Amino acid sequence: MKRTLFIALAMGLALVFGDPAKAQSADPLPSWNGGEAKQSIIDFVAKVTKQGSPDFVPPAERIATFDNDGTLWPEQPMYFQLIFAVDRVKELAPQHPEWKTKEPFASLLRDDVKAALAGGKQAILEILMATHAGMTTEEFEKIVKAWIAKAKHPTSKRPYTEIVYQPMLELLAYLRANGFKTFIVSGGGIEFMRPWVERVYGIPPEQVVGSSIKTKYEIHDGKPVLVRLPELNFFNDKDGKPIGIHTQIGRRPIAAFGNSDGDLQMLQWTTAGQGPRFALYVHHTDAEREWAYDRKSSIGRLDKGLDEAQAEGWTIVDMKQDWRLIYPHEMK
Amino acid sequence: MKRTLFIALAMGLALVFGDPAKAQSADPLPSWNGGEAKQSIIDFVAKVTKQGSPDFVPPAERIATFDNDGTLWPEQPMYFQLIFAVDRVKELAPQHPEWKTKEPFASLLRDDVKAALAGGKQAILEILMATHAGMTTEEFEKIVKAWIAKAKHPTSKRPYTEIVYQPMLELLAYLRANGFKTFIVSGGGIEFMRPWVERVYGIPPEQVVGSSIKTKYEIHDGKPVLVRLPELNFFNDKDGKPIGIHTQIGRRPIAAFGNSDGDLQMLQWTTAGQGPRFALYVHHTDAEREWAYDRKSSIGRLDKGLDEAQAEGWTIVDMKQDWRLIYPHEMK
Repeated sequence: MKRTLFIALAMGLALVFGDPAKAQSADPLPSWNGGEAKQSIIDFVAKVTKQGSPDFVPPAERIATFDNDGTLWPEQPMYFQLIFAVDRVKELAPQHPEWKTKEPFASLLRDDVKAALAGGKQAILEILMATHAGMTTEEFEKIVKAWIAKAKHPTSKRPYTEIVYQPMLELLAYLRANGFKTFIVSGGGIEFMRPWVERVYGIPPEQVVGSSIKTKYEIHDGKPVLVRLPELNFFNDKDGKPIGIHTQIGRRPIAAFGNSDGDLQMLQWTTAGQGPRFALYVHHTDAEREWAYDRKSSIGRLDKGLDEAQAEGWTIVDMKQDWRLIYPHEMK
Repeated sequence: MKRTLFIALAMGLALVFGDPAKAQSADPLPSWNGGEAKQSIIDFVAKVTKQGSPDFVPPAERIATFDNDGTLWPEQPMYFQLIFAVDRVKELAPQHPEWKTKEPFASLLRDDVKAALAGGKQAILEILMATHAGMTTEEFEKIVKAWIAKAKHPTSKRPYTEIVYQPMLELLAYLRANGFKTFIVSGGGIEFMRPWVERVYGIPPEQVVGSSIKTKYEIHDGKPVLVRLPELNFFNDKDGKPIGIHTQIGRRPIAAFGNSDGDLQMLQWTTAGQGPRFALYVHHTDAEREWAYDRKSSIGRLDKGLDEAQAEGWTIVDMKQDWRLIYPHEMK
């Protein structure tokens, strides 16, 4: 009883003498420079969380969706999942002597990614299926975990999970602290993301929407497994994003965050709902600290989306201007 | 300051003089008769929530999946979604004069459901596509909401949402109070459930896994919509259930609840994981208060599942013995 009394009094004292105003005034987005982009986020969150306001949104409906490649982590010099696939091709090559002369594998094994991808979508699909299918879901999870633990980004030489965007980590945390449920909605493979995004972004597997291949339920040695088949199930990009959101979340987001034309339909779908809505594009404008690309890039092209964002008044983050720092390791 | 002080002191007093032991001893499952089934649930929850125990499961991994038809609400004299479809056929008939002579619609319009379903899976698929496709997702949601608000079950004459199983509502609440995340994993249509399950079961749309048809993103009058197409996307039954769970949740449940052979693979998949696992079958044994059926029923057949449950020592709920009451309206 004495201990309980002590805790009760301590709580009482904290309430009486604590300074809640001070806690509230701490900047929730310290890696964002002050400006229109940062202010638009803070204004939106304040508006939808204010009890009694006409713009108040109940917590259950505070769904926020984030693209991954180029929005939460970089996508240059090429999508990281493609780098994973290339690494896998090299690891699997001893079991596939025929790859020495068969495209797109032959080029990959000569480190000529450009030539390998000259085969376009068909070549990419072949690389993905050869490296992402033919094992159980548990085996694939282990492969991804092992790769993400040891692989290094080609130019920064850092683990991929260390070059996520610090300002976006703060944004995710800020939204969750305000009752939002944060989802990833990516064109990337759902099973490539789930093994690490909970640890890195605080987003649990059930809040990841992505592209997928088909699986088959089988009993191996008396134990049920799901075998990954070399067949596309769903491509969660462009107009696939609203479909993926609808299938898996079943509720229209009130806020959506992307960086390319592949996110445009997600932003359209989000902002077309009734009540307060928020759409944001990360614009890669920082050739020194990250990369600068938009309308003409083959990866993460932002062209139609940039026009529509300007026309609709969506928030556009100018990485160079709006982000005080890019990666967590720059914080000191 | 005075008001804050008062709240602080009241909290202190509540902590000092409140009786937490009393709250803990209240029966969390009052509509369950004491017995093996009830005890097995309570033992499992106690085990996985006990800090420091070797069986402790962190809250993030406390995933529990529930079948719907026959597990959370009845499925007799036929699946309620099929009754919805029959009602829709009658409503749409004036726009389809050809249905007067075209099966399976002609039989349905003569109230001869049995004859209509004589066409087997093909007939059911035709009925479903004629009634579930050809509108936007928002329009379909309105149709379902309107039906569920006014339709009455043919024998009980009550709204369908009033004949959900009270013992299962208590079980859902009990699990959630112990940090579980509860999901529906049903063979029924995902869009047929989402409009009402949050209100009735406390399960939000993003925690519903079910069967679906394909949708297409289109712009209508400058506004993006998802149009429902007459083409099956995914059938979430039997070996589809582990696949649906893996695709949408991405994490293996630690507890699963079903009532038929259609749930067997979900229960196998759940119990095959490492660490403490729980599987439960609701066995329909109460012809007086509900229905009695199992091995030979065409709806909700429980045959192989019953054998496996007995062999594996899964919990089998004998509705007649284990449930003090069936529906919420029996509570007084």
